[in-house]
Amino acid sequence: MNQFDHSTAQARLAAPRLPSVTTGPLPASTKRHVQGVIYPDIRVPMRQITVHPSAGEPPVTVYDASGPYTDPAVVTDIARGLAPIRSDWLAARGDCEPYAARPVRPADNGFASGERLVPGFPVQRAPLRARAGGAVTQLAYARAGIITPEMEYVAIRENLGRTGAASTKRDGEDFGAAIPDHVTPEFVRQEIAAGRAIIPANINHPELEPMIIGRNFAVKINANMGTSAVTSSMADEVDKMVWAIRWGADTVMDLSTGRNIHNTREWILRNAPVPIGTVPLYQALEKVDGVAEDLTWEIYRDTLIEQAEQGVDYFTIHAGVRLHYIPLTVNRVTGIVSRGGSIMAKWCLHHHRESFLYEHFNEICDIMRAYDVSFSLGDGLRPGCIADANDAAQFAELETLGELTRIAWAKDCQVMIEGPGHVAMHKIKANMDKQLATCGEAPFYTLGPLTTDIAPGYDHITSAIGAAMIGWFGTAMLCYVTPKEHLGLPDRADVKTGVITYKIAAHAADLAKGLPGAQARDDALSRARFEFRWEDQFNLSLDPDTARDFHDQTLPKEAHKTAHFCSMCGPKFCSMRISHDIRSEAQKEGMAAMAEKFRERGEVYLPSAGAAE
Amino acid sequence: MNQFDHSTAQARLAAPRLPSVTTGPLPASTKRHVQGVIYPDIRVPMRQITVHPSAGEPPVTVYDASGPYTDPAVVTDIARGLAPIRSDWLAARGDCEPYAARPVRPADNGFASGERLVPGFPVQRAPLRARAGGAVTQLAYARAGIITPEMEYVAIRENLGRTGAASTKRDGEDFGAAIPDHVTPEFVRQEIAAGRAIIPANINHPELEPMIIGRNFAVKINANMGTSAVTSSMADEVDKMVWAIRWGADTVMDLSTGRNIHNTREWILRNAPVPIGTVPLYQALEKVDGVAEDLTWEIYRDTLIEQAEQGVDYFTIHAGVRLHYIPLTVNRVTGIVSRGGSIMAKWCLHHHRESFLYEHFNEICDIMRAYDVSFSLGDGLRPGCIADANDAAQFAELETLGELTRIAWAKDCQVMIEGPGHVAMHKIKANMDKQLATCGEAPFYTLGPLTTDIAPGYDHITSAIGAAMIGWFGTAMLCYVTPKEHLGLPDRADVKTGVITYKIAAHAADLAKGLPGAQARDDALSRARFEFRWEDQFNLSLDPDTARDFHDQTLPKEAHKTAHFCSMCGPKFCSMRISHDIRSEAQKEGMAAMAEKFRERGEVYLPSAGAAE
Repeated sequence: MNQFDHSTAQARLAAPRLPSVTTGPLPASTKRHVQGVIYPDIRVPMRQITVHPSAGEPPVTVYDASGPYTDPAVVTDIARGLAPIRSDWLAARGDCEPYAARPVRPADNGFASGERLVPGFPVQRAPLRARAGGAVTQLAYARAGIITPEMEYVAIRENLGRTGAASTKRDGEDFGAAIPDHVTPEFVRQEIAAGRAIIPANINHPELEPMIIGRNFAVKINANMGTSAVTSSMADEVDKMVWAIRWGADTVMDLSTGRNIHNTREWILRNAPVPIGTVPLYQALEKVDGVAEDLTWEIYRDTLIEQAEQGVDYFTIHAGVRLHYIPLTVNRVTGIVSRGGSIMAKWCLHHHRESFLYEHFNEICDIMRAYDVSFSLGDGLRPGCIADANDAAQFAELETLGELTRIAWAKDCQVMIEGPGHVAMHKIKANMDKQLATCGEAPFYTLGPLTTDIAPGYDHITSAIGAAMIGWFGTAMLCYVTPKEHLGLPDRADVKTGVITYKIAAHAADLAKGLPGAQARDDALSRARFEFRWEDQFNLSLDPDTARDFHDQTLPKEAHKTAHFCSMCGPKFCSMRISHDIRSEAQKEGMAAMAEKFRERGEVYLPSAGAAE
Repeated sequence: MNQFDHSTAQARLAAPRLPSVTTGPLPASTKRHVQGVIYPDIRVPMRQITVHPSAGEPPVTVYDASGPYTDPAVVTDIARGLAPIRSDWLAARGDCEPYAARPVRPADNGFASGERLVPGFPVQRAPLRARAGGAVTQLAYARAGIITPEMEYVAIRENLGRTGAASTKRDGEDFGAAIPDHVTPEFVRQEIAAGRAIIPANINHPELEPMIIGRNFAVKINANMGTSAVTSSMADEVDKMVWAIRWGADTVMDLSTGRNIHNTREWILRNAPVPIGTVPLYQALEKVDGVAEDLTWEIYRDTLIEQAEQGVDYFTIHAGVRLHYIPLTVNRVTGIVSRGGSIMAKWCLHHHRESFLYEHFNEICDIMRAYDVSFSLGDGLRPGCIADANDAAQFAELETLGELTRIAWAKDCQVMIEGPGHVAMHKIKANMDKQLATCGEAPFYTLGPLTTDIAPGYDHITSAIGAAMIGWFGTAMLCYVTPKEHLGLPDRADVKTGVITYKIAAHAADLAKGLPGAQARDDALSRARFEFRWEDQFNLSLDPDTARDFHDQTLPKEAHKTAHFCSMCGPKFCSMRISHDIRSEAQKEGMAAMAEKFRERGEVYLPSAGAAE
């Protein structure tokens, strides 16, 4: 397959409004590639953050979802797409075949034409599918005892360059998960075979840098974007995708509605090193001009194939919204708040029929397994407010999602389960426990949850609280919420805020569940803080630009970057400076011995006789 | 006492750089006053948010910490201060007496002079103190069986106008707290008598609108501000105080350092309807020119009296940093991060002596009880990073704080206990449990905790996660963290972000612990959301201005404020619009009966036979 057969000049002609994306490394960062052992052609990217020589410390290695855009050694070209690093792996398996793609129809782009039509992606490639009804899924391989390149890739990726257990002591509460000291390719295979983890990796998305979603791995985050009938363009969405992964989004969902859905998605996919998810129902609804009742299985099925051929890695499918659950939502405060859920509910009710997604679930599985599209079983009846959390409608649907998980697994399809929504803190753990029990430990993928309804404009924060907690409890991937949630469409700044906020939630969860090595970055940053290495503190942070900017606002001078005091307190009140004095003193005095003495005398922890005069 | 004996003109002459503060009601809000029953002159302010007539709902009553600044019926004048609403209550008790104040000395303002000296507050008032060594504390009254006006005030305030139990069902997990359905003045008295709650209310702060801090009441938040040697002015700090309470800060800590501490504090106090806390050690250190070793008990004692006379409501006192705990911090990653803690540690080490705060704790109590200054026993050895959380130094100090609590209680002093800091999620609950056990259920007052170290610039968020959780577990007051934490001094925008973020954390905690009535605002906002009452949704939110602004960014037109679709999705994909269609359909179909039928047939919750074709 050679998709570099179009000249860049031609491409630019075809796409005059080409997206411009942010490239180049983050501050003090270099990209390192770790080679595979089973598959030596594997090169797993990691980001290394260099610290000041005075620290006498090695660089800090962190997970790198940003793709080739942050690699100065790679020249990326949006009109040509990323290099298809998986093509050889797929070819080597020999179980899939190229075929003539389903032709693109005007309805696929909402009948956009002329200037309103987003140009097609300049490079075409024949889609692949499994030969003769086979399953080309990571689950099928895992069950067959095969370690794929994708599996070795994610094993290396999760270890962040460590070749054994993390040097720091294991610490954490994992609520019955089985997080290993060191991730081996065989462990990855076992987790996938058990259904406890997935590698969303459509065979038509060879540009993908594989990643794993599962409770025994680092918590991942997803960023939503997409055009809408109201606003935004293809160029903006591609830019947002690259921007989101720059700050750490592990997957991106393209939730585009309106016109140009097909072509926008193609531009996104060909430039995406992360898994791309969609809700195929949105495009299907556009094909029937927004009239839910006019949806049919045939239109939906055609849309699944259309998107599977393009390379979408996971589909949200709201097959758990069954006819007889709909009445359970009637007395809710906010009814059905999932778009897909409400569309299906309306269809069911209008036709007085069971959902076609539920009725045709076996056929859906047959499509998914032919391309290795992972299921993200949608929670169409998730609560949209605190009052509706954990209600009968929500948990009834969850039971059905468990039933569908077993059917999908029987077809060798990879599955994750979507979760709420709006849930007060004391009701969060029940969601996780019930999901694990009902869905056989299939990975949970939650939106927040938002822990209160009273802060529109700050729902990245209301939801980060719930996200951190449910991530700790076992959720494998957290879907971000931006400050614009409930109010408007996220712009570039909102996307970054959402991603950083969710990196915080995911990392807080990793620390709490005791993920090996997770604390290394905290420790490195804290040492930098204590040693007044301001530049290192900025560089090691999730958002170096903002950290530096905030410091500049109070102490703009360059000299302050080496100041041995904190701008918050000024020199006299700098506790860390005083702590250093105390340590010098301690060295003189043999403080460690002193501590031991106090301990022996039992003065530590025992209240003394009272506050004497 | 008549403090209105200076003309405004005079005041303006004395203070040419008079602060300008934000006044006026929040959108759609009016101030309502609820009268006392035991004390009919009590007028407890509450904020009522009016909703659109189409809702057919009464206004939503919310807690109002903003003081007279949001009351259009009151003309505030910064140079005259707020009305001394508590003066008559204090006089009626007849147990305190005015006396000649300690003269203000040049050292009190860091020897600032001429143009650099912040002018003294234009109105002077003789300070009060207890007669003949008595205790004029709320704790002393509570133990004597007396319900004070302050107690009735906070009882009314906590109920938010409800005269009985909240109409919504109690829901929540309170971890052994004893939250009543309805707060009575007698319940308040009992909680204070038991040491489980405090009303910080210095007798020299008559402008105070009393509030209560305790586990069985709404979770409160504190906002820090203050000048520093590096930047900021008196006018800015007064403005920030009024700004912070406008958005919901329940108390404010003036952490000023540098020059002009005395005069800045006076301007703040005379204009503060909320309790003001300080760390007296900061001013004491300024008096010895920043040389910790030169601190003496006499200088510190004099500072306590100076500030008690001004009306400071609570003092952070780091009396738990004992000499023999200091060696326990030597191997920490970030040593001692509390300013007060590090200063005291340095003093102890230099003199090889026990802390003078610990040794003179009885005398400190004698001062506190004469003015009813509440203790906020400082956690000088709190962890400054994830690595140092829950270590021997931290918990050794906590034991001492428990010991000091019992001494203070024996002297009838009100006490709360400060808590960490930086703590990963899985170690948070141990902090709460240990504090409750060690400190006899004295209220806990925590800074965050931050749940990871890797996000400077976003530490309002890293800490809101921990704050919400520890608030749920039983912490009574949460000290805010702004985005500038670790990087710079918070400006006005940071103060607002910090306050709103912590209102989220506190409210999420209230919901989770099952505070009666807490969910009413969530429900009202969610109903507004479901019914497309956009204006109501903005007005009911914690920050109406930001919510409206975000909506305008996507859908700026006025017509969109009544649009029956969500800007996020556009009309075709509006789940709430579709939900309304479903409800109409449901009414036609008798959906409730249908639900019942499904239930009888056992189809709800039971997985059906499988996904049929």
